[in-house]
Amino acid sequence: MKNLLQLRQKNLGPLFHPKSVAIIGTNRVKGTVPHDILESILKAEFNGIVYAVSPREKSIKGIKAYKYVIDVPDDIDLAILVFPSSVCHMALEQCGQKGIKSVIIISAGFREVGEAGLEKEKQLIDIARKYDMSLIGPNCLGVINTDPETNLNASFAREMPERGSIAFLSQSGALCTAVLDYARAKHIGFSKFISFGNKADISEIDLLYYLMDDDETKVILMYLEEVSDGVGLMKAAQEVIEKSGKPILIIKSGRTNEGASAAASHTGSLTGKDEICDAAFKQAGIIRCDHIEEMFNKAIAFAYQPPPESQKVAIITNAGGPGVLTTDAAISSGLKLAKFSEETTQILKKALPATANINNPVDVIGDARSDRYVTAIKAAFDDPDVAGVFVILTPQSMTDIDTIATDIASIAEGETKPIYTSFMGEKDVASGIDLLQKHKIPHYSLPESMCTSYAAVYHFHKHLQPKVHRLAALENIEGELARKLMDKVHSNGRSYIPEVETIELMQTYGLPVPSGKLATTPDEAVNIAEEIGYPVVLKVVSNDIIHKSEAKGVELNLGSAKEVKDAWERIHSNVKLAMPDAFIAGLYVIRMITGSEEIILGIKRDPSFGPVVMFGLGGIFVEIFRDVSFGVAPLSREEALHMIEQTRAFKILKGTRGRNPRDLDSIVDAIMRLGQLAVDFPEIDELDINPLFVLDEGKGSIIGDARMILTKTV
Amino acid sequence: MKNLLQLRQKNLGPLFHPKSVAIIGTNRVKGTVPHDILESILKAEFNGIVYAVSPREKSIKGIKAYKYVIDVPDDIDLAILVFPSSVCHMALEQCGQKGIKSVIIISAGFREVGEAGLEKEKQLIDIARKYDMSLIGPNCLGVINTDPETNLNASFAREMPERGSIAFLSQSGALCTAVLDYARAKHIGFSKFISFGNKADISEIDLLYYLMDDDETKVILMYLEEVSDGVGLMKAAQEVIEKSGKPILIIKSGRTNEGASAAASHTGSLTGKDEICDAAFKQAGIIRCDHIEEMFNKAIAFAYQPPPESQKVAIITNAGGPGVLTTDAAISSGLKLAKFSEETTQILKKALPATANINNPVDVIGDARSDRYVTAIKAAFDDPDVAGVFVILTPQSMTDIDTIATDIASIAEGETKPIYTSFMGEKDVASGIDLLQKHKIPHYSLPESMCTSYAAVYHFHKHLQPKVHRLAALENIEGELARKLMDKVHSNGRSYIPEVETIELMQTYGLPVPSGKLATTPDEAVNIAEEIGYPVVLKVVSNDIIHKSEAKGVELNLGSAKEVKDAWERIHSNVKLAMPDAFIAGLYVIRMITGSEEIILGIKRDPSFGPVVMFGLGGIFVEIFRDVSFGVAPLSREEALHMIEQTRAFKILKGTRGRNPRDLDSIVDAIMRLGQLAVDFPEIDELDINPLFVLDEGKGSIIGDARMILTKTV
Repeated sequence: MKNLLQLRQKNLGPLFHPKSVAIIGTNRVKGTVPHDILESILKAEFNGIVYAVSPREKSIKGIKAYKYVIDVPDDIDLAILVFPSSVCHMALEQCGQKGIKSVIIISAGFREVGEAGLEKEKQLIDIARKYDMSLIGPNCLGVINTDPETNLNASFAREMPERGSIAFLSQSGALCTAVLDYARAKHIGFSKFISFGNKADISEIDLLYYLMDDDETKVILMYLEEVSDGVGLMKAAQEVIEKSGKPILIIKSGRTNEGASAAASHTGSLTGKDEICDAAFKQAGIIRCDHIEEMFNKAIAFAYQPPPESQKVAIITNAGGPGVLTTDAAISSGLKLAKFSEETTQILKKALPATANINNPVDVIGDARSDRYVTAIKAAFDDPDVAGVFVILTPQSMTDIDTIATDIASIAEGETKPIYTSFMGEKDVASGIDLLQKHKIPHYSLPESMCTSYAAVYHFHKHLQPKVHRLAALENIEGELARKLMDKVHSNGRSYIPEVETIELMQTYGLPVPSGKLATTPDEAVNIAEEIGYPVVLKVVSNDIIHKSEAKGVELNLGSAKEVKDAWERIHSNVKLAMPDAFIAGLYVIRMITGSEEIILGIKRDPSFGPVVMFGLGGIFVEIFRDVSFGVAPLSREEALHMIEQTRAFKILKGTRGRNPRDLDSIVDAIMRLGQLAVDFPEIDELDINPLFVLDEGKGSIIGDARMILTKTV
Repeated sequence: MKNLLQLRQKNLGPLFHPKSVAIIGTNRVKGTVPHDILESILKAEFNGIVYAVSPREKSIKGIKAYKYVIDVPDDIDLAILVFPSSVCHMALEQCGQKGIKSVIIISAGFREVGEAGLEKEKQLIDIARKYDMSLIGPNCLGVINTDPETNLNASFAREMPERGSIAFLSQSGALCTAVLDYARAKHIGFSKFISFGNKADISEIDLLYYLMDDDETKVILMYLEEVSDGVGLMKAAQEVIEKSGKPILIIKSGRTNEGASAAASHTGSLTGKDEICDAAFKQAGIIRCDHIEEMFNKAIAFAYQPPPESQKVAIITNAGGPGVLTTDAAISSGLKLAKFSEETTQILKKALPATANINNPVDVIGDARSDRYVTAIKAAFDDPDVAGVFVILTPQSMTDIDTIATDIASIAEGETKPIYTSFMGEKDVASGIDLLQKHKIPHYSLPESMCTSYAAVYHFHKHLQPKVHRLAALENIEGELARKLMDKVHSNGRSYIPEVETIELMQTYGLPVPSGKLATTPDEAVNIAEEIGYPVVLKVVSNDIIHKSEAKGVELNLGSAKEVKDAWERIHSNVKLAMPDAFIAGLYVIRMITGSEEIILGIKRDPSFGPVVMFGLGGIFVEIFRDVSFGVAPLSREEALHMIEQTRAFKILKGTRGRNPRDLDSIVDAIMRLGQLAVDFPEIDELDINPLFVLDEGKGSIIGDARMILTKTV
């Protein structure tokens, strides 16, 4: 794995830092991609040599043009293919022969147009493999590297963006143009700007590993339509975050079924359940965003300002109303209002007029000029309880907007606490906002975005402490026995596996199966009951019966031999009535559990992220409140606990309002064991434990019922 | 009520449409409010006569200045006071003597600065009452009326806004300047722009009634920090919406406790629980917004475009990624993607290139120019399944942005279906967006805002059908008996009223009290049990015991005379142990209810909205999931039902997944009766029914336990 990774990284160097670039398929027709991309590179003053390759022209834009790439007399680090898709493979073959190791294929007309395109794309991959080339694309906008040592705009973007510390990767090319336009207006700079299109070869995962070590990049943003290797993406993200401390923000579209199917028709992507993607991103430390604006709002907070030490902010405003709205937004985002020290209060009291509000939120009053803002901001920065400052401005007639903007920028310089701003309005505040943006002071048109961005940075850094979740070695797993049981179960080709066999398998993985046995006669049932202790439950065991309760094949709370025998008769006659043809293998006798909380655990399999464990409170809570959480297996102890903590069920299990605290540890253990089972047995398509009876703290849990569905053996 | 209302309206005419205006306290000092407000009026070319009143100057800006307002030789419709707060009362007294009926007091320094200011404000109100004057303010920005017949900018806003059909009212003056700036940049026009400040006299309620009949106004927006008369606001909103069909959008700040206390220190406002405000607004048909941008996003949808007939939209984009994001946003906002007819599909197939996506969302592909957009938009408009069209644009190199914007405007002209747009990016799309805004085509930078705005308009119009919720006349209410009971309960000065007396009172209001009686001996308890039928519940009755269960004073499920007698002994010895000094009046014997769903009903009293009924599922659902709803009493049948429908508990009560459908009608009835009780007995500060046992459909409900807290008699 490590070696493959290093190999990748060696190959991405020339892609981003080429000394020589060939544009293959360029022409003289302005306004077309083949021409414009050459123009882009020249306009950005690429710090290397550009070769034009065009079958028809002798020269383009004053540069000599070669007929074929093999005609170029020098070595080429990076080739950019802009030929129609029908001839791309021939050009790529020549690149291989020429020894070019990095290629960007801008051309569209591959996988995204259907079967025929997919074939052509496979052809490209074969050629790349043959010559050990790295490919970006096809069907992309290209790559931009603002590092002045390279200065590469190998894209058909109209203009080179400003230099900055944000890397942006996108699966959609069209979105890139909107992003570049948006960023330019707000003076947001980029380190790398990469449109990776169909990711036939280089994927977002390769790019993450590359950017991990890229000194120019501090924040990584990504727009994704398809997570093809969810596990790989999680691993890469975790490694990047842990090793480099760089935050990763991703927009993954297709949240809704309709959106997902629109994405599928757009790029042929297949997506799993969105809530699993949500859980997986969270597990990997990825910050998921809903749209471009949210992403950049958070990105500038990460890129421009130091991380806050706490959630306590000071709000400084020249208008009460917006101060109140910002307070609401801060509290709703989980922030707190800092409580000023006596010293701060005295400073504010002296410097501000009598009508000003010197408590947090500080109102410097509508006629405030910059001096009052400066005093208040400095006082807030100096206050030990303040971890960050929010400056709100409304354009009143006295307000010297531009001066305030410039003064904020100079106060912020070298300050270790972050400062965010919101100048409300539009035209009157435009030049002030522009000044803030030029000086890399985060500006937000909405207090909500300001507060959620602050919260995102705070939480990211709070959780950044290196925490390689070591997967606890699980004891008492009898792998060989499990394999044997599974083979047996599998051998008769069933896909639905009922309770008894599912429980047998789970027992080998140390899951808390109930004391119970299969009885084939009433006397045997009584013997088992006496052995495990009354009260007991009787359940029908039959391959023909999926819903035991509906067939009236379950009797609860049997307290004596007589009750067991009576129940035996009732179950048999009930089942005979409900399903006359069902073969009854016997009745399952288990201990009746009372005074417990019922939860649900399960295994699911996601097309992107693989084995997933589900947790939720039982019954109505899952059905009506959808109070469930997911975790991608295998799961560490911390991750398993976090699955419980993020549900509201956690409050119930912890024991609120006079309820008994339940045995959380046993749930955590069960989640981890289920996760391991899911990883070890890919043939388990679905497994449900419903319910798991969770007893009081220290007393464990016991499985109440379970079933499993196996992938059909082909 | 009606007469008072008409009187009000008579007085507001001269306020907005004066023929003559006096600025009292103006001066020559540029940059000060007293000067700038005169300048504003002159600059906006007021269509009437302006009189300057200034104790010191002979003339200001070429206009003759009078020393006192009584010196003005002509009648004056509107006076604007800009004197310091210390002398305002004298000027106002003169206004009264002069017979001026409408006054705007811009000056600050009243209620908002504390006790002394409040006194000054009361003085103003007394003078206004004496002379029957209407007052706007104090502490406000003033009033703007863009009607060309008046052309009044009686404010210190830098510039007169564009004319339009949106009225904006604000309790915060400072916010107004931000709003005017924001609106100007986006070509949003106003009919009236009113900063009403401390609302010493004219409140938002008076203004709502005025705007109801104002032909220039189609949409009403408001920023509120304090709801002083919640019931009045609800009534006014309901009347305006029902009679005029004008939507009312309100930002009510102070959502969080911290925000509310910031608001309190800002304007001395007192606010109730935010969730009750939420419920009350919903009940009145008010659309609550969180911030200025959300409010204007929705306002332009209401003001610019026809309302949609259904939730089915067509999305037209030149980029797949944004199409997917918009689809996600639409579905998340409760919209649906329209399904194109065969005809539409054929038109798109013919007109668009082969690589285009002709299904909804339609992708006209990155190199599309306006002709493709026009074809697709027209085809979508013509499709019978499409109720509205969303146009998404990213700035690609071929995109003729301005032409597309202009073409959208001409297609939209006269169209009966709405069209909304989102041009993504910033600089490149700026002129296109400006064109859209000039042509009153709603534009949104985020697909989310576009979709939620569409949904808001759709829902408002769907629910607009005149539906004066007639309050059902509740039968079986014994008002006199109730009054007697309450007087008796009240007479001994207790505030905590335990179960038996609370239930007696509720019985007079036809609430479903359990069959049960107070027993003072074990034999009596048995007799009652035999009469009402086993199983029964015994509960201790004592003024000294608030928590019966904690004192072990409750015994459930007693099935025989013996069990009743045994329980009698247990309760007495338990209580004696737990609370040796408690006086036991007897035991309450009621029928035990099983097989029901437990819910909670209650009465609360909100400082802004008065009597409120609460509904929620019992136990853990209220505690952990906060699945409760509120309704301001009295409540109509529809409103009571809606309280249930908006909780997730509704699903449970309706009977999902094999659960029995419960008797919703009986809950609705109980909610209405509780509401009536709350209205009739203002001394009930709090009343809890916990639980109400809800039986199966048609079988009613029965109160399980109840208690009430009365306002302390002073």
